Amino acid sequence: MEKHLDVPEPQVPRVVIVGGGFGGLELVKQLKKVDVQTVLLDRNNYHTFQPLLYQVATAGLEPDSISFPIRKLFHGFKNFFFRLAVVKEIDTSKNEVITDIGSLKYDYLVVASGSRTNFFGNENIRYHSMPLKTVVQSLQFRSFLLQNFEKALQTNDLKLREAYMTFVIVGGGPTGVELAGALSELKRYVLPVDYPELDVRRMTVHLVDAGDRVLQALSKKSSVDAEKYLIKLGVQLHKHTLVKDYDGKVALTVKNGADGEIFTKNLIWSAGVEGNSPKGIDIDKITERGNRIKVDDYNKVIGTENVFAIGDVASMEQEEYPHGHPMVAPVAIQQATNLGKNIKSILKDKDLKTFKYINKGSMATVGKNKAVVEVGNFKSSGAFAWFIWMFVHIMSLIGMQNKSIVFVNWFWNYLNYDRSNRLIINRFSKTERKQKRDEGKAGIVI
Amino acid sequence: MEKHLDVPEPQVPRVVIVGGGFGGLELVKQLKKVDVQTVLLDRNNYHTFQPLLYQVATAGLEPDSISFPIRKLFHGFKNFFFRLAVVKEIDTSKNEVITDIGSLKYDYLVVASGSRTNFFGNENIRYHSMPLKTVVQSLQFRSFLLQNFEKALQTNDLKLREAYMTFVIVGGGPTGVELAGALSELKRYVLPVDYPELDVRRMTVHLVDAGDRVLQALSKKSSVDAEKYLIKLGVQLHKHTLVKDYDGKVALTVKNGADGEIFTKNLIWSAGVEGNSPKGIDIDKITERGNRIKVDDYNKVIGTENVFAIGDVASMEQEEYPHGHPMVAPVAIQQATNLGKNIKSILKDKDLKTFKYINKGSMATVGKNKAVVEVGNFKSSGAFAWFIWMFVHIMSLIGMQNKSIVFVNWFWNYLNYDRSNRLIINRFSKTERKQKRDEGKAGIVI
Repeated sequence: MEKHLDVPEPQVPRVVIVGGGFGGLELVKQLKKVDVQTVLLDRNNYHTFQPLLYQVATAGLEPDSISFPIRKLFHGFKNFFFRLAVVKEIDTSKNEVITDIGSLKYDYLVVASGSRTNFFGNENIRYHSMPLKTVVQSLQFRSFLLQNFEKALQTNDLKLREAYMTFVIVGGGPTGVELAGALSELKRYVLPVDYPELDVRRMTVHLVDAGDRVLQALSKKSSVDAEKYLIKLGVQLHKHTLVKDYDGKVALTVKNGADGEIFTKNLIWSAGVEGNSPKGIDIDKITERGNRIKVDDYNKVIGTENVFAIGDVASMEQEEYPHGHPMVAPVAIQQATNLGKNIKSILKDKDLKTFKYINKGSMATVGKNKAVVEVGNFKSSGAFAWFIWMFVHIMSLIGMQNKSIVFVNWFWNYLNYDRSNRLIINRFSKTERKQKRDEGKAGIVI
Repeated sequence: MEKHLDVPEPQVPRVVIVGGGFGGLELVKQLKKVDVQTVLLDRNNYHTFQPLLYQVATAGLEPDSISFPIRKLFHGFKNFFFRLAVVKEIDTSKNEVITDIGSLKYDYLVVASGSRTNFFGNENIRYHSMPLKTVVQSLQFRSFLLQNFEKALQTNDLKLREAYMTFVIVGGGPTGVELAGALSELKRYVLPVDYPELDVRRMTVHLVDAGDRVLQALSKKSSVDAEKYLIKLGVQLHKHTLVKDYDGKVALTVKNGADGEIFTKNLIWSAGVEGNSPKGIDIDKITERGNRIKVDDYNKVIGTENVFAIGDVASMEQEEYPHGHPMVAPVAIQQATNLGKNIKSILKDKDLKTFKYINKGSMATVGKNKAVVEVGNFKSSGAFAWFIWMFVHIMSLIGMQNKSIVFVNWFWNYLNYDRSNRLIINRFSKTERKQKRDEGKAGIVI
């Protein structure tokens, strides 16, 4: 007999939301006073503030500071249920979600399952590189990075020692740029005092990007400023360059048709993401490029009546966005807000409102006093932009306690040029990590 | 060929210290200006402030707040070397320490490897219970506890549901008492709002102790006060009671010869510790009770010339302490200070100073405004004692940043009756945890 997920049978329509990211959480809030039962499913019991994962990875923040327990967020929400569950498949013919702890019927389904790292089919890279999409991956990276410095101490093979201290970041988006900056600051301020025996000047940080500039989503001016900051911090920038393979030791690169190689034990893959579309959505409803679910202007999945998708996993082709909206938090939040209103309208048989994205700007930080910010026509670079970046990120964190603790950490690190959370917490043995990687799990290189 | 640990060959005597606990760290400081090469070996790259591990386990603090990177502590120490290594064996005939990354010769060896959980030979208990001696175990416990609440939601078997919500803590020492108090506060303030669907009143916390009172190391009055606080918080106290077996479902107890049983999925074992004596020390130099290394009044291992042991792992039989000193941080620190001076004297051919322990007092906290403190003849219980407890613990933490962050956390939790770090971070799959437990690793129950 099939096991059922234990949620009380409602007298009102049941809305099942898959994923507790920015979109999923916002939708729960929108439905607070609506006459529905809301069930949120997530594989974690916490929400992750993904924009700051790179700070966990580089020992600047603790994972708890950028995460927030989902149950705590919705104290006092009536008719709300959270279940810690991994969604395995969706059966739209039976209106059913199948999870690892049982199946659940829905009246309305909202897929808000976000995105995952896109390795573009390269199994070697998936197997040997570190992505930075989850809390666990960031913690693994932190341990991996520090452990490689310990290993560098223990070898007399100079080439291998340098490989342990060489970092190749693939992808010049915000994650790649911010990580490159953070690693360079570690190189400059932290690692030389931690490892006086090593010649840390030999540590190198490479940022590799296929395009002609980093931060493609921002203006040309911001890209130029960001690149200037990166170079000032000592990052080696490789533009028009692809990483075509990596075996755990040598990254094979191509630049203008010419092959190259970089010896490195640390390859960070931030070259792309794809929609985390669940099994069971018809293949013709998934975009070929990006693995996203095709939705109409109301976020309804094409060809369905009661299935919606929002955020990174949804691709809404609109005039300004022929390939769907950018995969960023503000889109997810705005789509959730609009969908929440539309669900109310559906229940009241009113007309639905089409979604319209309002771009509130973008920003990225490279290092201390070095950031770029764009809001509409306003552009800023340098120290002021850096303060805006910090302010916006602290204010966006959920919870006063997280805000205060991140503030203390950043204030401290600002004064002391320090990043204190340098603990290597070994999670997996060598056998286990091999096993996990063989099973297809990414980011288990340590 | 045997691999050697890569540490520069010194022109001065080499002191190898095994373990970066309270004793090991203090000794490194004492040897700062002494004409020796100091090599510290530890399996972790951080020092753990063990007295607060129970706070990590109960979601009150993050692991990074109670840990400190060892390399950072010794910035600027000349002739100091840290190696991340697991000590496998000591060969006193060859003056050599054998580790997982190679062997190392020493002129003087100081074993400061601390203590580990003592299961008194009960394999079932080791296999199924949670100890709280390391950062990883505390994180595992935190996830385990929260996951069991999620599981309680998913079962209709009422007996099983209660077993998920029943906590049995074995051992009424400071760890047991503080954990029982913290769990009761979670029950009172946090879990009912997180799990409105569960009748959290059915959650029970049992504290089981073989003796006639908790906190045996403190005075009768303090024990009575602590027990009063525990009962006020709803803890079920079982004195004169032994837990003789546990199969993961039922804890078998004995009280005054009568058998009993408690259905529980959560058994926390804090009933004892034993010296973490490394392999290679002659069996006749190890105490039968407690597995500690017998040392003379100078912390020198009996029958050796250049091997010392300090802290929990050392047993120095003195008049007041016929079975060795209590296994607490102040003993380790004071022995390290004395040994540091004696090593200087040895190098200068001067007379050695015998060790004399100065007991500065003890304390334990049960919950908000509920603690007991004893310093010499001064005894205090209640709110004032609780403030002393907090002050002493914050001041004992290493680093201003840790101090500030723990302060923010505690201040926040004090105002809000909250414990925010409620993230379940799954570390191991079912297969992996079985494998680990089969290999003999404790604390991998999740």
